[in-house]
Amino acid sequence: MKVSILGSTGSIGTSTLDVVSRLDRSFTVAGLAAGSNIALLSEQVERFRPCLVSVARREDALALRRRFRGRGMRVVFGPEGAEEVASLPANDIVVAAITGTSGLRPTLAAVRTGVRVALANKESMAVAGALLRAAAARSGAKIIPVDSEHSGVFQCLAGGRRRHVRRVILTASGGPFLRTPLAEIPAKSIAEALRHPRWKMGRKVTVDSATMMNKGLELMEARWLFNLPPEKLDVLIHPQSVVHALVELADGSVLAQLSVTDMRIPIQYALTYPDRAASPLAPLDLAAVRRLEFHPVDERRFPLFALARRALAAGGSVPVALNAANETAVGAFLAGQIPFGGLSGVVRSVMDGHLRRPVPDLEAILAVDRETREAARRSLNDRW
Amino acid sequence: MKVSILGSTGSIGTSTLDVVSRLDRSFTVAGLAAGSNIALLSEQVERFRPCLVSVARREDALALRRRFRGRGMRVVFGPEGAEEVASLPANDIVVAAITGTSGLRPTLAAVRTGVRVALANKESMAVAGALLRAAAARSGAKIIPVDSEHSGVFQCLAGGRRRHVRRVILTASGGPFLRTPLAEIPAKSIAEALRHPRWKMGRKVTVDSATMMNKGLELMEARWLFNLPPEKLDVLIHPQSVVHALVELADGSVLAQLSVTDMRIPIQYALTYPDRAASPLAPLDLAAVRRLEFHPVDERRFPLFALARRALAAGGSVPVALNAANETAVGAFLAGQIPFGGLSGVVRSVMDGHLRRPVPDLEAILAVDRETREAARRSLNDRW
Repeated sequence: MKVSILGSTGSIGTSTLDVVSRLDRSFTVAGLAAGSNIALLSEQVERFRPCLVSVARREDALALRRRFRGRGMRVVFGPEGAEEVASLPANDIVVAAITGTSGLRPTLAAVRTGVRVALANKESMAVAGALLRAAAARSGAKIIPVDSEHSGVFQCLAGGRRRHVRRVILTASGGPFLRTPLAEIPAKSIAEALRHPRWKMGRKVTVDSATMMNKGLELMEARWLFNLPPEKLDVLIHPQSVVHALVELADGSVLAQLSVTDMRIPIQYALTYPDRAASPLAPLDLAAVRRLEFHPVDERRFPLFALARRALAAGGSVPVALNAANETAVGAFLAGQIPFGGLSGVVRSVMDGHLRRPVPDLEAILAVDRETREAARRSLNDRW
Repeated sequence: MKVSILGSTGSIGTSTLDVVSRLDRSFTVAGLAAGSNIALLSEQVERFRPCLVSVARREDALALRRRFRGRGMRVVFGPEGAEEVASLPANDIVVAAITGTSGLRPTLAAVRTGVRVALANKESMAVAGALLRAAAARSGAKIIPVDSEHSGVFQCLAGGRRRHVRRVILTASGGPFLRTPLAEIPAKSIAEALRHPRWKMGRKVTVDSATMMNKGLELMEARWLFNLPPEKLDVLIHPQSVVHALVELADGSVLAQLSVTDMRIPIQYALTYPDRAASPLAPLDLAAVRRLEFHPVDERRFPLFALARRALAAGGSVPVALNAANETAVGAFLAGQIPFGGLSGVVRSVMDGHLRRPVPDLEAILAVDRETREAARRSLNDRW
C-alpha cells in the first residue's frame, strides 16, 4: 500500500511514519506534504524515499531540489503542491493530517481521487462534511477516521448497522483545566494550556482540548462521518482517556472502544483496516488503571463547547464560522496576543455577528471562512 | 420465528417469555420444557399457546393433559420430553436454559437439529464444549450465547476476525462476599449467599457467583464458544457489572460491551441477531454510574475460581468432574447440609481424587459426571 501524508512533520504525520516503519514492507511512502520544518522533512525523505514532496514556500522547495538532486524525487510547493501530493495517482491511502481549514483543499483533492483517506483533519469534516461525503460517494473514496474517538466509533460500528445506533458518545479528558477553580482559568498561560494530562498532540488541538472546542469540532466531524443527526451525538467527560467512544444500540446494549492513549493505535488501524497488525505498545492494563470515571460536561467551565453544540444544531455556515473564529482566536492566544480567558469572548462576539446562510459548495465555505477570520481579527484588534 | 424454551419457568425462561411478548408478532412460542413449577407453566401455556410442553414428572403431565384437553397441545414428560421440545421440527430458535448437567442432553438435541440455539446453560458448554461445537459444525446450528459476558464478547467480535483476538476478558461482579473479611466468609448463610449485589438470577448460579465458580464455568464456556485457548482468556473483578466483557485485539485496541444489568438485553439479542429490536429498558447512564472499577481476582478469596482455572487448563475429564462436584456441593449447601465454607473443601477433595482421562463422547462425559457426583456425595457424608 502506497501511503501519502499531508502534514508529515506534525504530530500525526510523524506518528504515521513511525507506524509505517513498523508495519510490513507492503506499506511504503509515496508522497509527503509538510510546511516549513525542512530539517525534519529532509530526514523523512532520507528514510522513506517518497517520489513527491511538497513544502509551504518556494525557497524551501528550491533548496530541497538541490539537496536531493538525482534521486528521482519531485519537489513542489504551496497549497497546489499539497493538493498534488493528495492526488498522486500512485496513492492507495492518503493520511490527511494538516490542521485547520488549510487542510480542507488537499483533503477534498484526496477524496476526489477515490482512494482511502485516513482523516486526522477534523476541521475539514466539521466545516465541509456534506461536501466531503458527497465527493466520497461519487469517487468511491473510503474515509476512515484517525481521531481516537472516531476510530473508536468506527470500530464499534464495524459489525453493526447504522439504523441500530441510538446514540454515539465521544469521551473527553476535560483537558488541563478540568478541576481548576473557575476564576483561575482565564489567566492560564500558554504553557499551562499546552500541558495536556493525557495526550501528546499538536499545539492547536491541545489548546482546543483545554477549551473543549476540540470536542465540539469532533461532534461536527462525527455528525458527517457517521451521518448521524446532532441529537444522537453526546459527550461525556472521562478524565482517564481510556474509553474513547461508546455506541448505544437500539436494544440498550452499548459497545465501547478502549486503548492506551497513543495515536499510533488509531493511525495503524486506519492504514490496515479491515485487517489489524500487531502493535509494539504495552497492552491496556485495566487493573492498573483501576477506575474509569464519567461525568457530564459543565458548560460554564467550557463555554466554547456550548457554542460548538449550538453551531452543530444550527448547521449551514455556522460551524464554518465557528471554526474560523476559533482558529483565529487560538492563533492569537498562541502568539501571546490574548489571554486564555479571551478565547471564548472573541469567538462569541464573532458568532453573535454571524448570520446563518447555506454553504452549498467549497467556494461558499471558503468565503464564510475568510469573512469570519476578518471579523475575528477586527474583534481581536478592538479588544486587545 | 418459532421459539422453544428449555427451562421456561426459571429466571432465564421467564425473562425470555417477557422478551418474546414485547417483540413483534413474528416471534411465537413453539414448545416449553419446565420442571415442576406447574402453576407458572400453566400460566405460560394460557398466554403463549405452545404446541408442545414437557414437565419433569408423569403425574404433572397427566394433570396438564386433562386441564388443556382440546387445545391441540401435546404434553410430554421426563428427560425425553425435554429433548422432544428441543428437537421440535417447527423450531427456529431453542433457548437452552436448563441449569446444570441436566441441560446437556436437550441442548445437544437442539444443536443436532441445526437450528439457532440461544445458550444460557453454561454447564453444557463447560463440560461438553468440544462435542457441542462438533455437533453444530455438522448440523449447521448457530450457537448464540445468552450469558451477559459471552453475549458481550460475541457482540464485540461481530465485525472482527478471530485471528485478531489477543485476549478476551470476562468481568465478574465479585458477588456478595467481595469485601467480606476472609475469616467471616465460611459461616455465611444461604440467604446471604443468595443476596447478589447486581444480578437477579436462579439460586444455583447465584451461589456460584458468590464462590466465583460461575466465572470459572464461564471461562470454560468461552473457551469453546469462541474456540480460544485458555491462555487467551482472563477475568477482571468489576463490581459495577456495567462492562460485561472486553476483547483485546492484535493492535492493542480493546472493544467492550456494556449495558444495564438486565438479562433481557442479551436474551433479546440472541433472538433477534443479527438484527436488534428496541428495548423498553432505561438506557445505561454512565454519568449516573460515575465510576467503573477493575481489579484482579484474589484467588484466596475465591478458591473455587482457582480450581476452575486449573481445570480449564487441564481439559479432558477435569472440567466435567469439577462441574459435577460443584453441582453436588451447591445442592448440599442449598439444602442446608453444609456451610458455605464447606463448598470449596468438598470440591477440592473430590478433584484431588480425580484422574484426568479423555472424554470423547456424551457417554464418557456422563460417566465422569455420574462417578464424580457419587464421589462428592461420599465426601459430603464423610464430613457432615
